[in-house]
Amino acid sequence: MPIPVDLRLEARWIVPVEPEGVLEQHALLIDGGRIVALVPTATAERDYVARERVALPTHVLLPGLVNGHTHAAMTLLRGIADDTSLKVWLEQHIWPLEARFLSPEFVHDGTLIAAGEMLLGGVTCCADQYFFPDAAARAYRQSGMRAFLGLPVLDFPTPYAADAQAYLQAGLAVRDAWKHEPRLVFALAPHAPYTVSDASWEKIVVYARQLDLPIQTHLQETRSELDQSLQSHAMSPLARLDRLGATGSNFIAVHAVHLLDSDMDLLATQGCQVVHCPTSNLKLASGLAPVAALQARGINVALGSDGAASNNRLDLFAEMRLASLLAKVVTGDAAALPAASALHMATLGGAVALGLEASIGSLRPGKQADAISVNLADFQHLPCYDPRSHLVHVAGRDQVSDVWIGGERLVQSGMLSSLDAADLAARARLWQDRLQTG
Amino acid sequence: MPIPVDLRLEARWIVPVEPEGVLEQHALLIDGGRIVALVPTATAERDYVARERVALPTHVLLPGLVNGHTHAAMTLLRGIADDTSLKVWLEQHIWPLEARFLSPEFVHDGTLIAAGEMLLGGVTCCADQYFFPDAAARAYRQSGMRAFLGLPVLDFPTPYAADAQAYLQAGLAVRDAWKHEPRLVFALAPHAPYTVSDASWEKIVVYARQLDLPIQTHLQETRSELDQSLQSHAMSPLARLDRLGATGSNFIAVHAVHLLDSDMDLLATQGCQVVHCPTSNLKLASGLAPVAALQARGINVALGSDGAASNNRLDLFAEMRLASLLAKVVTGDAAALPAASALHMATLGGAVALGLEASIGSLRPGKQADAISVNLADFQHLPCYDPRSHLVHVAGRDQVSDVWIGGERLVQSGMLSSLDAADLAARARLWQDRLQTG
Repeated sequence: MPIPVDLRLEARWIVPVEPEGVLEQHALLIDGGRIVALVPTATAERDYVARERVALPTHVLLPGLVNGHTHAAMTLLRGIADDTSLKVWLEQHIWPLEARFLSPEFVHDGTLIAAGEMLLGGVTCCADQYFFPDAAARAYRQSGMRAFLGLPVLDFPTPYAADAQAYLQAGLAVRDAWKHEPRLVFALAPHAPYTVSDASWEKIVVYARQLDLPIQTHLQETRSELDQSLQSHAMSPLARLDRLGATGSNFIAVHAVHLLDSDMDLLATQGCQVVHCPTSNLKLASGLAPVAALQARGINVALGSDGAASNNRLDLFAEMRLASLLAKVVTGDAAALPAASALHMATLGGAVALGLEASIGSLRPGKQADAISVNLADFQHLPCYDPRSHLVHVAGRDQVSDVWIGGERLVQSGMLSSLDAADLAARARLWQDRLQTG
Repeated sequence: MPIPVDLRLEARWIVPVEPEGVLEQHALLIDGGRIVALVPTATAERDYVARERVALPTHVLLPGLVNGHTHAAMTLLRGIADDTSLKVWLEQHIWPLEARFLSPEFVHDGTLIAAGEMLLGGVTCCADQYFFPDAAARAYRQSGMRAFLGLPVLDFPTPYAADAQAYLQAGLAVRDAWKHEPRLVFALAPHAPYTVSDASWEKIVVYARQLDLPIQTHLQETRSELDQSLQSHAMSPLARLDRLGATGSNFIAVHAVHLLDSDMDLLATQGCQVVHCPTSNLKLASGLAPVAALQARGINVALGSDGAASNNRLDLFAEMRLASLLAKVVTGDAAALPAASALHMATLGGAVALGLEASIGSLRPGKQADAISVNLADFQHLPCYDPRSHLVHVAGRDQVSDVWIGGERLVQSGMLSSLDAADLAARARLWQDRLQTG
């Protein structure tokens, strides 16, 4: 008797990420939102009967992409302050704008636009850290997207909270309100070692342990951050956080551009996670992260877009390509970070970084059915000797045709099903008017 | 009496490149394939009457992009040899494949596919250098695309020619046959200083002077090329070419990654042209070209995709973005190579490099009507504070809606009019089968 399942996806190629390699003439079987099996088409035909079948004859099917770091609501600031360094960008552009315009409505609308952009681009899960996470949670629920919400902590006031204790209280209240939402998970997100004091970090570490929450923070993004810490603390920011008890396998270091050898050792021995944001690191002239050196030490590295104000898009295909290209020139080795590794970083690497590898990141039976299909039919994508190479070096987010999260089809033939694209455009225009007229 | 013209294009924004800036509520008037005027819409309404009008209400209209360096026919080798350095890539992959498969048919089909890809991506003119330029010329004429055909010269035999003299003779015969074709121009394209002897360079210099042909060559792409020249010639490749009389304002150095200070001085004093190929330089781990330093010396720098076997796409939007991002990290200055400069490099910079600035590269009255429109309507491209930033950092070739060359609409709403996309796909599949089965 064939086993009944909800959905059967058949694609020209399937790249499950786990195990490695490319499968042809295989089908992915999905039931109750989870992956049931990934088997040869003939086996699928014999052993399963699907309520719905989707044929993807010129497509690659792969796990949904995981955006390891973004500030989703900053889509509203897309391109508003190009061509400035991190310090000037933050202090003279972004923070003053946020002080003036930040509100739950801003965060909701910006996050909704970001979720729409990410879904259309094949991103099924993101790690977001921004103010008013309650408003972001509402937007993610509306979109159907999976999100890892970093609850922000700073030592200085914003329209969201007054001091570190207030940020923590507000954030933990959001978590309490949303913790049963199936597609949301929470973390603590102190902004950076240089914007959060030792005393605040100590509190954060206590809460993280008690509540079993990961910590995601911007770490050693610029040379001056490292230098200033060496001057004022006589140690690197990472060493300082380690002394404060913050490091470990659920410590997620975003950027990690300027690292001492001892920092790399520490990341490895503590089993920390790294999120590489290549476009943002170049655009802010921060530097070139030592990704291949980190991977050589066995450190898991995920990929992130950062926010749309320093990128200016939330596009994991662009990050895969740039990560692969940069690793080659940084190491002087053209074999560094091949396409398959970039795909691993953007999927399972992201899931591991966020502690979600039991449920997402690969097309392994038992995991959530988060999958995307990329159409390589057009002649611009031909010839195709290896679809993994094409996913990284030839195709892009514009070739994403369909997106499933937990078996739910949220993008169909390039159209959003959970969100209205015209409504998102109207919201973006409204905020542009407000920001421009002041 | 209003002046009758063939075509009036009205776009939300027009970026003419020359002069700098962004125009709103303007119209471009075209007659006999040339730009007649770029004026406010009210003036256009009053002074001109157009046979055809095209409204582009959510688009940016800009000059067609100029791809300063490619090997078009290598689309057939797209992605066939990833993750190898230039030397291994050439010697173990590309040259053996070419020795086996190179033919006029290979070049014609590969170039046709490349022309289709470039047109759809907003590239209206490319500098191509490859074997069997006669076959390439046929493909370009079929496509309607403008091309600068570099006639190849090597000291070693290929299926195309036996020695330098034979390459030159074959190339010049092609030029004689096609020199009256309005959208084709010719140049001499010795492969590189290290693959062409002094004696051959001397001949090339004589022909270039007599026939007033530019010279385009790969120059100092890798560190080892520079080092080996310093060892065997006691000077850089560029210094050697200068001594052989090759340099000048119509000497086009492709790559120019590893340059001595004296090389940069020489490029500046001789008024040489440089074509920067950022993706290819990263993918082959060649290095990071000193683009900002060259520009600071007043050297004109164009952008190139290189061939699809080392990129793996012919996408000037990707090159603009990467050039801008890399310049920031190479200089450590986030203000380096802003979007407007990247757009200049990809348009007028390319035209100047190829000696075509009198006829293309900007939307200046009197020039050929080579223009493209990019649709920024989708919410992923909103908000939009400056369309130049979006052209470089947010949009991509997939947003190109229309392409005109000499006033002829070769892409309409994302569809090729001169070529059949299904036919191009069939040709690509055919060659893939041949290459894979050997």
